[in-house]
Amino acid sequence: MSTAELVKKIAREARAASRLVARLSTDIKNKALHAMADELLKRANTLKKENQKDLEAAEKNGLSKAMIDRLTLSDKVIKGMADGLREVAALPDPIGEVTSMWKRPNGLKIGRMRIPLGVIGIIYESRPNVTADAAGLCLKSGNAVILRGGSEAIHSNRAIAECLSAACALTGVPEAAVQVIPTVEREAVLAMLKLEEYIDLIIPRGGEGLIRFTVENSKIPVIKHYKGVCHVFVDKAADMDKAVNIAFNAKVQRPGVCNAMETLLVHEGVAKEFLPLIHGRYKEAGVEMRGCEATRKILRDITAAKEEDWGAEYLDLIIAIKIVKDMDEAIEHIENYGSLHTESIITENYTNAQRFIDTVNSSSVMVNASTRFSDGHQFGLGAEIGISTTKIHAYGPMGLEGLTTQKFIVYGDGQVRE
Amino acid sequence: MSTAELVKKIAREARAASRLVARLSTDIKNKALHAMADELLKRANTLKKENQKDLEAAEKNGLSKAMIDRLTLSDKVIKGMADGLREVAALPDPIGEVTSMWKRPNGLKIGRMRIPLGVIGIIYESRPNVTADAAGLCLKSGNAVILRGGSEAIHSNRAIAECLSAACALTGVPEAAVQVIPTVEREAVLAMLKLEEYIDLIIPRGGEGLIRFTVENSKIPVIKHYKGVCHVFVDKAADMDKAVNIAFNAKVQRPGVCNAMETLLVHEGVAKEFLPLIHGRYKEAGVEMRGCEATRKILRDITAAKEEDWGAEYLDLIIAIKIVKDMDEAIEHIENYGSLHTESIITENYTNAQRFIDTVNSSSVMVNASTRFSDGHQFGLGAEIGISTTKIHAYGPMGLEGLTTQKFIVYGDGQVRE
Repeated sequence: MSTAELVKKIAREARAASRLVARLSTDIKNKALHAMADELLKRANTLKKENQKDLEAAEKNGLSKAMIDRLTLSDKVIKGMADGLREVAALPDPIGEVTSMWKRPNGLKIGRMRIPLGVIGIIYESRPNVTADAAGLCLKSGNAVILRGGSEAIHSNRAIAECLSAACALTGVPEAAVQVIPTVEREAVLAMLKLEEYIDLIIPRGGEGLIRFTVENSKIPVIKHYKGVCHVFVDKAADMDKAVNIAFNAKVQRPGVCNAMETLLVHEGVAKEFLPLIHGRYKEAGVEMRGCEATRKILRDITAAKEEDWGAEYLDLIIAIKIVKDMDEAIEHIENYGSLHTESIITENYTNAQRFIDTVNSSSVMVNASTRFSDGHQFGLGAEIGISTTKIHAYGPMGLEGLTTQKFIVYGDGQVRE
Repeated sequence: MSTAELVKKIAREARAASRLVARLSTDIKNKALHAMADELLKRANTLKKENQKDLEAAEKNGLSKAMIDRLTLSDKVIKGMADGLREVAALPDPIGEVTSMWKRPNGLKIGRMRIPLGVIGIIYESRPNVTADAAGLCLKSGNAVILRGGSEAIHSNRAIAECLSAACALTGVPEAAVQVIPTVEREAVLAMLKLEEYIDLIIPRGGEGLIRFTVENSKIPVIKHYKGVCHVFVDKAADMDKAVNIAFNAKVQRPGVCNAMETLLVHEGVAKEFLPLIHGRYKEAGVEMRGCEATRKILRDITAAKEEDWGAEYLDLIIAIKIVKDMDEAIEHIENYGSLHTESIITENYTNAQRFIDTVNSSSVMVNASTRFSDGHQFGLGAEIGISTTKIHAYGPMGLEGLTTQKFIVYGDGQVRE
């Protein structure tokens, strides 16, 4: 069988399974999630043995220490996968929820009911734990899933998939509900992206290159976020303690993730007071500061920011700092250089807070809070399959609800149209 | 300027305008909608004169009478466009609505606020009144819009666009908020479909060919419905009066539209009673019946249905009829041949009604009602820009809400992440 034929077979089976998965009771779905957790723990030694093959190949291929870290299935990571699946089992089942219902003058009762999307394709890199996480979320939301991990994790992903399939078989869930594409050929991804007949949504998780490749080649709708260039704007009316704490936390607490701040915007009326305060904190933490001209008149020892710094996603202890003359300039800067991810204003001024919330159309807009909260768990969604900066369908952190749509339901009593 | 450059210029201006349109007050948007209605009525003679050019070309090119009908801008059609715009003005403004808000243990208040998508591209055929209808819905929902009508309506569309632009200018709405692509070259559509940087959503309105062409060539998300193969299932426990009335209405009341029924499924336990009743009504109305073998044992004078009849969208006074042994077979038939548009069960049995509602995942699922109700106005959405059978984003009739998305808003008090 050619790679394209293999992928088509997998997708066709996923489509057939999706009809059955959509109708599974909450109870069966939860039992399957717990069984998946059990299997992962029971087969931990096999998982680590298979993972070892990937790790050896990775070292031979000279992958970075960070990459190898992400690739490693330790007992802790395996327990993390199992715990994650049990957490998903504990979440409310979104399927069948009637979100609203109204009555028309002719007596028709019309409502909207949450249903699964059908078949979800997940394309991801390096971290094999995504295999279990994504499978759990898709199953709980009544979808079949096709997982395509990175070639560097192929042995680990196949071993995890075997645990998941075994759990499905044990609990009466169709095995084709969760499938891993078992080949490393890149052709498999291309083949998958053309199967609009069988796959309803593609979610790429990984670097910008992977995401651009996916969007470029997909006939299926893609929910994507390219990058997170998050801003904090310290308004003139900011409380200095809050401003310093938030600007510090948003940059330093975990710089390598998409909801970390990359650019700090400071109102000129408060720059002389605020900048030296944050400068001290950043220096202590080893943050490299790159400022606009006006910033460098106050902080004389920092680097000059270049044009490309304003759109940069450093994912590192580097920050671009710009002084703006007012909130309008801050908003314009965000519109020109932002990535529709997360922006926060620090202010005690009621009107400015509301105007920032109303005007900025990023997927998460905050007042007096660290951008680091932009996350499905932190927002209370219970889980997160990704963060969308595509305005279609889901926008911002996506939990189970992001893997569903709503159909109209109509209860009539014999009505016909005049 | 080349066609591609022209389209890019239009799209870039639309993107810039979209930022301003997103912030317009409800009051200004409504004033603009009324001004658009006024301009259309004031310039009715110009519209009819320009429309005459299109009509002459249509006759020269031998367009069908139905096509010419759709193309004609009569006084009645012009008044219809104006009335439609005033109706949209009367609808509630969806933008800024906070659909839910909750509080996290750390005190963060997190909510979801409705915002515009940005720039919408509408690609449509023949009916010039779509120009005004779509522009009105996009403006009310805070979006900029780029309209690309059929070449056969180019003079009419340009004339309507001039009315809309004049109304924008009069009321302080950026003129680039509503733009018509002024050239007939097909290249313009292709150019438009590549501008993912400037356009957020494409809605094609027209025949299957147009929609397939759009999906095939678009880098931008497309909300589509290919066709409406709607089913009515007459259950064993159906009330005969309701079944006959609904089966008649769903087929005959307006056969040329997507929510008309195309296939009638009949439970074998009721076929002998039901089929002769509907046969009489259909015959009177001149409906051509094409039946499965079992149907033809009861209705001996009708044509035999072929395999291709089960997936056919006749849009005409033709109906395919199939006898099924139970509801499961009916649902399986719908899954195999349906188009995810609208299906209705006729039954007095409570359990069957609920199971049909729960199991069938078409965009509209009904009990004891005519499929003809599947429509934004009939559902009480106040308006309709189209019907989506794409499960992503919007599913079923799309009103103003379908032209929006939701961002997360976060009110904090200095919270940082631990």
